[in-house]
Amino acid sequence: MKELTTDRIGPDDYVLLSIGQRKSYLVRAEPGKSFHTHKGYVKFDDIIGKEFGTPVMSSLRFEFVALKPLLRDYIMKCARQTQIMYPKDISLIVMFSGIGPGSRVVEAGTGTGAMTTALAHFVRPEGKIYSYEIREEFQRMAERNLKKAGLADFVELKNKDITLGIDERDIDSVILDLAVPWLVVPHAYIALRTGATVVSFSPTIDQVVRTVEALRENSFTDAETVECLMRGMQIERGKTRPQTLMTAHSGYITTARKVLRESLPT
Amino acid sequence: MKELTTDRIGPDDYVLLSIGQRKSYLVRAEPGKSFHTHKGYVKFDDIIGKEFGTPVMSSLRFEFVALKPLLRDYIMKCARQTQIMYPKDISLIVMFSGIGPGSRVVEAGTGTGAMTTALAHFVRPEGKIYSYEIREEFQRMAERNLKKAGLADFVELKNKDITLGIDERDIDSVILDLAVPWLVVPHAYIALRTGATVVSFSPTIDQVVRTVEALRENSFTDAETVECLMRGMQIERGKTRPQTLMTAHSGYITTARKVLRESLPT
Amino acid sequence: MKELTTDRIGPDDYVLLSIGQRKSYLVRAEPGKSFHTHKGYVKFDDIIGKEFGTPVMSSLRFEFVALKPLLRDYIMKCARQTQIMYPKDISLIVMFSGIGPGSRVVEAGTGTGAMTTALAHFVRPEGKIYSYEIREEFQRMAERNLKKAGLADFVELKNKDITLGIDERDIDSVILDLAVPWLVVPHAYIALRTGATVVSFSPTIDQVVRTVEALRENSFTDAETVECLMRGMQIERGKTRPQTLMTAHSGYITTARKVLRESLPT
Amino acid sequence: MKELTTDRIGPDDYVLLSIGQRKSYLVRAEPGKSFHTHKGYVKFDDIIGKEFGTPVMSSLRFEFVALKPLLRDYIMKCARQTQIMYPKDISLIVMFSGIGPGSRVVEAGTGTGAMTTALAHFVRPEGKIYSYEIREEFQRMAERNLKKAGLADFVELKNKDITLGIDERDIDSVILDLAVPWLVVPHAYIALRTGATVVSFSPTIDQVVRTVEALRENSFTDAETVECLMRGMQIERGKTRPQTLMTAHSGYITTARKVLRESLPT
Repeated sequence: MKELTTDRIGPDDYVLLSIGQRKSYLVRAEPGKSFHTHKGYVKFDDIIGKEFGTPVMSSLRFEFVALKPLLRDYIMKCARQTQIMYPKDISLIVMFSGIGPGSRVVEAGTGTGAMTTALAHFVRPEGKIYSYEIREEFQRMAERNLKKAGLADFVELKNKDITLGIDERDIDSVILDLAVPWLVVPHAYIALRTGATVVSFSPTIDQVVRTVEALRENSFTDAETVECLMRGMQIERGKTRPQTLMTAHSGYITTARKVLRESLPT
Repeated sequence: MKELTTDRIGPDDYVLLSIGQRKSYLVRAEPGKSFHTHKGYVKFDDIIGKEFGTPVMSSLRFEFVALKPLLRDYIMKCARQTQIMYPKDISLIVMFSGIGPGSRVVEAGTGTGAMTTALAHFVRPEGKIYSYEIREEFQRMAERNLKKAGLADFVELKNKDITLGIDERDIDSVILDLAVPWLVVPHAYIALRTGATVVSFSPTIDQVVRTVEALRENSFTDAETVECLMRGMQIERGKTRPQTLMTAHSGYITTARKVLRESLPT
Repeated sequence: MKELTTDRIGPDDYVLLSIGQRKSYLVRAEPGKSFHTHKGYVKFDDIIGKEFGTPVMSSLRFEFVALKPLLRDYIMKCARQTQIMYPKDISLIVMFSGIGPGSRVVEAGTGTGAMTTALAHFVRPEGKIYSYEIREEFQRMAERNLKKAGLADFVELKNKDITLGIDERDIDSVILDLAVPWLVVPHAYIALRTGATVVSFSPTIDQVVRTVEALRENSFTDAETVECLMRGMQIERGKTRPQTLMTAHSGYITTARKVLRESLPT
Repeated sequence: MKELTTDRIGPDDYVLLSIGQRKSYLVRAEPGKSFHTHKGYVKFDDIIGKEFGTPVMSSLRFEFVALKPLLRDYIMKCARQTQIMYPKDISLIVMFSGIGPGSRVVEAGTGTGAMTTALAHFVRPEGKIYSYEIREEFQRMAERNLKKAGLADFVELKNKDITLGIDERDIDSVILDLAVPWLVVPHAYIALRTGATVVSFSPTIDQVVRTVEALRENSFTDAETVECLMRGMQIERGKTRPQTLMTAHSGYITTARKVLRESLPT
């Protein structure tokens, strides 16, 4: 992701056109072209060269703001062909993983790259994400999404089946979002540094039970499973209330840490 | 936070002594000394020089694991004199802020440094946290906690009242956890880059309403308020169920982005 | 609501045609007519005279079950022109109210009669519901819904503004679901027996605060406000998980009890 | 439960002594005796003959209110030797069961009688609860609790193992709160009227899966499982917020309806 150090919108930069209330579009500012919505069109030549954060009127006189996309904008706009992983889950997974700038992380499956984008964002510029995916069409989609966010350099996309093994060693965290995480646990043990984390995201209880059992059988400690619910609020003086609908479930997050197998004498 | 590149426990290193089930102690491995619990004592000389992640027997024959502390361990062990901010909230605030390696962030109040620790962890080594706090005793506590986590170099602790103004400019995010966040909003507008974020954490609805009103009056867009609930699961084949108790509320998280005040003609 | 003592479907009886997965239709079994769905039609003459609970094939060979409607079926099928009150809320309101067979209850506003239906169901045959509503079109709708459920005899629908006063005395509970519940609190004090309950349902925080203040100022004790969240589970061996979407908010439930104004000497 | 028709506290009546904030004691007003708390004592002779809802000063000058106990008070004060079932769950179970005045209900196990108390409250005076329990000490406790609430006449306590069979027929609902609900499902099919409900309450996912499978195999339709979360609010102008702690899980509620086994021709 490009830093906020460049404050001016360049030709072909990605821009988040927001009309407020969290309704927004992630678009590329192509010179000579326009972006059309039901609230009128915006000419990109009107915003190129301007500062990010500048308001711009559409042809139908609605005010848009041309914002620089942030991490969560890239995540939410990742093409949605797969079950989405939400910012609420991604941020908690990053926290549980313990990673940060410089970390080396293995991820599977890549999917459309929402999690990959976040991981690359937080480990750059010295760290690296090794992301496994067996479906080539997803890999191509993830590659496009990573390039859009300017994060492709920090990711190695691997068209491999992680249930057959992990190539890397001395890894700081293994992040799993696939149907059979328990099959990866023994490989994760070999790939991880001692004390490092596995974090797995699964929609069903049955996946969680099998994964936690595999973690316990493979010398991981402090296994813990949580779910995270996020509810929006409508804030207006005299009318404040929680929103009417919410996502009731995306998935359970399970984490544990690798322990050396032999015990020390006291 | 030290990278996981050093895998051996050195003298005076901080160690997380875990006895499983997320029961653990953050201690300093002082040569010649021991750590005493109701499950027996552990001699630090037994673990110094060993790899992080090594199991060790206590004098009463309970197995502890000597883990390298991760970000969330430092957060959870921040001295608890103030209302705690949980990893679930901190991770979502980081996500909403849009920050990453290299970001420059203003925070207030410092408190005991839980949020500061996380911010420093994610912006290091090039970024910087400017953290305002008016109560000196908290500042000293935060300083100790940041040193413990090896993150003090990335933070400037300021003993100043942020409601009177922010010294910094071109900031990537202003993170607020204080009683009167709405008083800081006009200062945040001046301190932030265009398009950059404010994220505020408040326990009461009334604080949220006043803050959202201040954001709307001060040319911020896309104001959004959420709350995040995390529930633990007890995973055991044949007995799997959610945990009995949970934190029902810590605080609401409000975020918005700075917009340039003048509008462009179409 | 008719008891389950009549087990056979009579002409013009209301029937719940269920196709499983909680997809169902509340229809009247009119002789000589049919009910048409996208899964084929069901002839009422095929089910009249049969036992409630009998499966019946549609013209397209889908199996429907002709069930006797229960309280929650009548509630959910109340015409939805107004903000719906859900069975989860209605059942908790009934519990907090303390009412049961024989109770005399004041309610406002009637709306489309979902709450009224439940109250009448639980106080019959000796009890009575006095239900206030200022909008005549709602009152007519509620009357139809109550007749459908066979409960109209236990309800007196009153086309009156309850904020101007309550006619009844020695009431066991006052149940409020209207925009300005705090204006009714002084009237409720007069209408209620000593020790009896007010229960108020409101979507916004601001309504709750004003109502609780009115309760405290008007000699009610034990004021308490809760919200109730219900989440569905998808149960299938190997694929069990919470449902994807849920209602995030319908309203807050506030309850309190009337206290005599003068204190006794010890 | 005695109606609120008697408004005066009689000798040996049960009284809810409340000191506000939902702190209260369920006591018997024995002539000549007193009730002692850390806020002083209350002489029963001071309240006998007074109206329910009367405030009374304790010896230490704290104000108590002598309230008539409501259903939820009796439920909450049921001796707590077993896992408690909360009013939130009990009220939803009653709603799902479809029962009301006059219903005949089978329940197992009785436990300390919290659910039994609610069922008897809602089916009286014509209905009947048949409550199975194999542990005699629980049965005795339930009997005491039912007598306290004035509801023993509407309950037949049976010291029998319901997994071996149900004696009753043409039952309106079978309510289950025991370790092995799936073993009762075939018996419930025989005992229930066509179209009538089973409602089962279980803390673990595994119990739910086995019960839903048994329901599907035994000609029940519309099987549905939910969980209910209740969160309290602290209401005070300028300081309104959700409460800090809540019950994260008590149990899942599963319901389904009996269908006749043979299908009708179209």
